[in-house]
Amino acid sequence: MFSRIVALSRSMPAKVYRELRRTHSTASSAAPAALWGLGRLNHVAIVTPNLEQARDMYRDVLGAKVSDITPLQEHGVYTVFVELPNSKIELLHPLGKESPVQAFLDKNKSGGIHHICIEVDDIDVAIAELTKRKVRVLGGGKPKIGAHGLPVVFLHPKDCGGVLIELELTSSGVKK
Amino acid sequence: MFSRIVALSRSMPAKVYRELRRTHSTASSAAPAALWGLGRLNHVAIVTPNLEQARDMYRDVLGAKVSDITPLQEHGVYTVFVELPNSKIELLHPLGKESPVQAFLDKNKSGGIHHICIEVDDIDVAIAELTKRKVRVLGGGKPKIGAHGLPVVFLHPKDCGGVLIELELTSSGVKK
Repeated sequence: MFSRIVALSRSMPAKVYRELRRTHSTASSAAPAALWGLGRLNHVAIVTPNLEQARDMYRDVLGAKVSDITPLQEHGVYTVFVELPNSKIELLHPLGKESPVQAFLDKNKSGGIHHICIEVDDIDVAIAELTKRKVRVLGGGKPKIGAHGLPVVFLHPKDCGGVLIELELTSSGVKK
Repeated sequence: MFSRIVALSRSMPAKVYRELRRTHSTASSAAPAALWGLGRLNHVAIVTPNLEQARDMYRDVLGAKVSDITPLQEHGVYTVFVELPNSKIELLHPLGKESPVQAFLDKNKSGGIHHICIEVDDIDVAIAELTKRKVRVLGGGKPKIGAHGLPVVFLHPKDCGGVLIELELTSSGVKK
């Protein structure tokens, strides 16, 4: 396609040529979307120094529906899910000495927003494509089973505008 | 109802009485939900040092649909909306010297997650109820018109587990 644009370019105004190149370049660089689809915002994760207090705030002050406090030993966190009609807020508190959210809490003593989780329909293709595009996939690029029992990976914040992004396979994307 | 529990308590086991008190107290403290409803997660806002780069990352690397860069002079920010099937990510960059996101960027030079925005069906009642419950509503408790042309307020992060929460009136909640 690109060579066709170049060939055509001799007979077209410079402005049209530039626009075609621009459009082509955008379409080309957006190619991953065709191989794997970015889906729903699954949740926003918030690390809190006091899980009970945070849960009570969302339930009793904001009137949201909240889950019980659940320890996830293998992830080193206690969790509470706050249900909103279209998405979830995941409240996290460190569990154990090796908790992955302890360092964040040490830096942000009052708590704060830790990461966002977006669903993808093919996590293996997503990992391969992102790695090719120099986005570092944490944990050696191998998915782990996340809080919802589905494969997840985290992308390096330095490659994602300062934001820790979790990708989670949608339940409909699980291979049988 | 509470006096009825007290009266009944003389003829019931201590455990049942405690459970009834607990249930009653939870129901009572969750009262605001009946007066105003917490709705959808409207968006997650991310402040970025380079809006074009961040937009390109979401569009070209993650394959998301993104809006044009839009200056919102009255809010002191440039914005890009990243559309996900169920919610949005709002990319923000300071506009002007008085930008409300400049201090955040000074502290977080690579950018980061700035706030979450949740819809409410009655913003005036929400403000009144939250103020009564000692949650500080910024801007003197007066809603401003936000990026979507709807009234918004921000709640003090110290009263919300370290998280800046924006409340936005749902479009269906606008009084005619």
